[in-house]
Amino acid sequence: MDRRKFFRNGSLFTIGAAVLNPFQGNANVLDFETINKNKKAKNIILLVSDGMSTGTLNMADLFLNRKYGKGSNWIQLYKDNRVSRALMDTASASSIVTDSAAASSSWGGGFRVNNGSLNVGPDGKPHLPIWQKFKRSGKMAGCVTTVPITHATPAGFCVNSKSRNSQDDIAEIYLDLEFDIMMGGGKNYFSAQTRKDKKDMFAAFQAKGYQVAKTRAEMLSTSNDKPVLGVFSDDALPYSVDRNSDSDLTKTVPTLAEMAQKAIDRMKNHKNGFVLQIEGGKVDWAAHANDIAALINDQIAFDEAVKVAIDFAEKDKETLVIITTDHGNANPGVIYGKNANDNFDSIQKYTQTNEWILNQITPSFSISQVKEVIEKANGHIPNDEEAKTILSYYDGLHKEEGLYNYKKLPYKAFSEMQQKTNSVGWISMDHSADYVELAMFGPGSELLKPFVKNTDLHYLMLQAAEVENKF
Amino acid sequence: MDRRKFFRNGSLFTIGAAVLNPFQGNANVLDFETINKNKKAKNIILLVSDGMSTGTLNMADLFLNRKYGKGSNWIQLYKDNRVSRALMDTASASSIVTDSAAASSSWGGGFRVNNGSLNVGPDGKPHLPIWQKFKRSGKMAGCVTTVPITHATPAGFCVNSKSRNSQDDIAEIYLDLEFDIMMGGGKNYFSAQTRKDKKDMFAAFQAKGYQVAKTRAEMLSTSNDKPVLGVFSDDALPYSVDRNSDSDLTKTVPTLAEMAQKAIDRMKNHKNGFVLQIEGGKVDWAAHANDIAALINDQIAFDEAVKVAIDFAEKDKETLVIITTDHGNANPGVIYGKNANDNFDSIQKYTQTNEWILNQITPSFSISQVKEVIEKANGHIPNDEEAKTILSYYDGLHKEEGLYNYKKLPYKAFSEMQQKTNSVGWISMDHSADYVELAMFGPGSELLKPFVKNTDLHYLMLQAAEVENKF
Repeated sequence: MDRRKFFRNGSLFTIGAAVLNPFQGNANVLDFETINKNKKAKNIILLVSDGMSTGTLNMADLFLNRKYGKGSNWIQLYKDNRVSRALMDTASASSIVTDSAAASSSWGGGFRVNNGSLNVGPDGKPHLPIWQKFKRSGKMAGCVTTVPITHATPAGFCVNSKSRNSQDDIAEIYLDLEFDIMMGGGKNYFSAQTRKDKKDMFAAFQAKGYQVAKTRAEMLSTSNDKPVLGVFSDDALPYSVDRNSDSDLTKTVPTLAEMAQKAIDRMKNHKNGFVLQIEGGKVDWAAHANDIAALINDQIAFDEAVKVAIDFAEKDKETLVIITTDHGNANPGVIYGKNANDNFDSIQKYTQTNEWILNQITPSFSISQVKEVIEKANGHIPNDEEAKTILSYYDGLHKEEGLYNYKKLPYKAFSEMQQKTNSVGWISMDHSADYVELAMFGPGSELLKPFVKNTDLHYLMLQAAEVENKF
Repeated sequence: MDRRKFFRNGSLFTIGAAVLNPFQGNANVLDFETINKNKKAKNIILLVSDGMSTGTLNMADLFLNRKYGKGSNWIQLYKDNRVSRALMDTASASSIVTDSAAASSSWGGGFRVNNGSLNVGPDGKPHLPIWQKFKRSGKMAGCVTTVPITHATPAGFCVNSKSRNSQDDIAEIYLDLEFDIMMGGGKNYFSAQTRKDKKDMFAAFQAKGYQVAKTRAEMLSTSNDKPVLGVFSDDALPYSVDRNSDSDLTKTVPTLAEMAQKAIDRMKNHKNGFVLQIEGGKVDWAAHANDIAALINDQIAFDEAVKVAIDFAEKDKETLVIITTDHGNANPGVIYGKNANDNFDSIQKYTQTNEWILNQITPSFSISQVKEVIEKANGHIPNDEEAKTILSYYDGLHKEEGLYNYKKLPYKAFSEMQQKTNSVGWISMDHSADYVELAMFGPGSELLKPFVKNTDLHYLMLQAAEVENKF
């Protein structure tokens, strides 16, 4: 098959073709083509740090650099000149600011859909999700994430659903489609006790030959010869910094890098190759909560999964690795000021998330107890006024709203207090329209142009794997 | 000269050298090298949109796309695959968050200096500014900007000064160094009436053979055979959107694109080539003021100067064009919400900046007068409560601080009100540590690696022009 000529919806469609300007061209495309000549991407690993603004990528790199003298694996790929890069426009059909369902659907189905929808167009038309396309072409397919495995970003590669909220249904669709490894959180959507229909989906997966892992140890002991369902928490997995500060969680919950390694090991020997999505889902939740220790440490956990993917792809030589995010969120950044360095470095002392702190506090707490719990988690004692303000949200009258803030805790108020001593600011507690960073490594990376729409990725993945888009 | 081997401070220093990884290299560098083989950059045009966060680049492109159906010239260069790109680390010697003086000095002198300093290191050591190096190598050199021509960013390419605030002195240094065209604002630093030493710098420049232009018409009628000093405003030039809404300002003040064109015309026939800095300086001021109409429209004015530079370089074929920013500022972005599209589009109705609005209001204004002036400028009527809040800042007691907020006007309070109807948020009123966007076009662009420190640009410019760094 001629990789330059490609069928999209039956018509001839050329993506990333090298049209050199007569006077001066960036022959990046041609050049990658020379290197990757006749190499197709047998495997594709797509890593998505959900809701990662430019500042999130920057702060994780800065944090690592200042703490350990070495920055992130992601940025190191740039320093070593080993990837192609693009800016990506992340809009959905309904808005210049996408949600994660529409964002994943743009990659997953190749079409922009309305926010909230999974591969169902504004006209009601379903678009076949890309992991189903690759399954039909003979590849293995899987997803690992730190949020429920039935959540928007993995679901956008796997299913059609009018609503991302149908997580009970999505668990059933996964069973029907027989993906090869699916791991993350979300027991609530598999357990007979918590599902609306009282079906025991764990038993159903087992009956179909799946190994079901509910702890890190169980996951590590699964055989690579049979499919795996791994579900390690009722809803999302704990934030990395909270996991790392808790010996029980460290034992029971795997890291994203560990799940990524397991997924690769499970699928790497398949003769027709595999496709794998790896989502750092709680980077987005941390941004929604303006929770800086959660954000930076989950971005770092994502970055460790980047290393797992690149280490495999380096040796394998037939794997396209895509590293990106689905949209910005809260546009965090370190703010100018004479104490900016020390303030930013104070985050190194944060051993728990704001979520952990705010959940420790109860209405019966005294001011000094509030100060104590914050000092324990942040290495910084708030003043009485600040502690009093936080406590005032526990009176049952005052509350904050927020996408993942079920308990109406004062995330924003607390983050604004922290800003005085950590110099990190946020524009909001929600997604942004910013164009986002996208990098590719390995065969197929030569197809990337410097600016793409999110939907372009769908066709690029098919093209890189030389899977004709006729289903 | 071998462009791969290059002297930095007397020792062998290789920048941007193509070290291919054994398994998989991005041969971007080699490839550009093939195209630009034996082509040196006779001319260099560096365009800097001061204080441009990712969201500023994104919003200007979105704004143009939604208003006119065609995005920015900058992003179009990416869509057409005509540039090399990098992320740039913008830190200074004293902070992870730079100011504009240290940022310009990193490019200008090749060394990081403390915030506030112009090419004087933390140890007091001066670093020869790059426009002086190029002058000594026989090229013409100039700067155009929308802020005072004596301001940090142009000064960082031209002078050594312990403090960026010495603008009176900087005007004198410019005279001594005989730059070929210097244009922007800043009459206060040239006029006998306003300078501390009462020197008439305009007369001094004229005595040295300069043509002095104080209006757009005077600028357009200058000869290209003699040096030009153009100073069109007491301090900074007006914001683009205010200029475009005022027929007097439109007549008297040139656009950045017009100044850029004039500077190129003045220097383009010089046998040894030229170097030119083009600064969109008020993009930064707009971000400091969280002033969205100012920000987007000045970014667009900058983008029109990008077109002037690229149009010249396309034909010339010996010009390296560098397009970047010196640091992020305020990390603005469009925030998720069901009205995000309509809200963002409402900015198309803004005919004046917040600066203009807040300067129209006086302590004697009634609530309805406040509402009237805001409606006139924004096409949106605030409610009584909002108008009352704004007016409360004019009582002589309430005031806001801010870098360029000499009159202590309520920029932040007003911007927060606007957010409800325009969906744009800001993290602060100051610079951020974000890594920033950098693009290059033309001979020398092959030297760019995907991630650079700001100081790398100094050596890259010398290398691209094949000017040995021995001064």
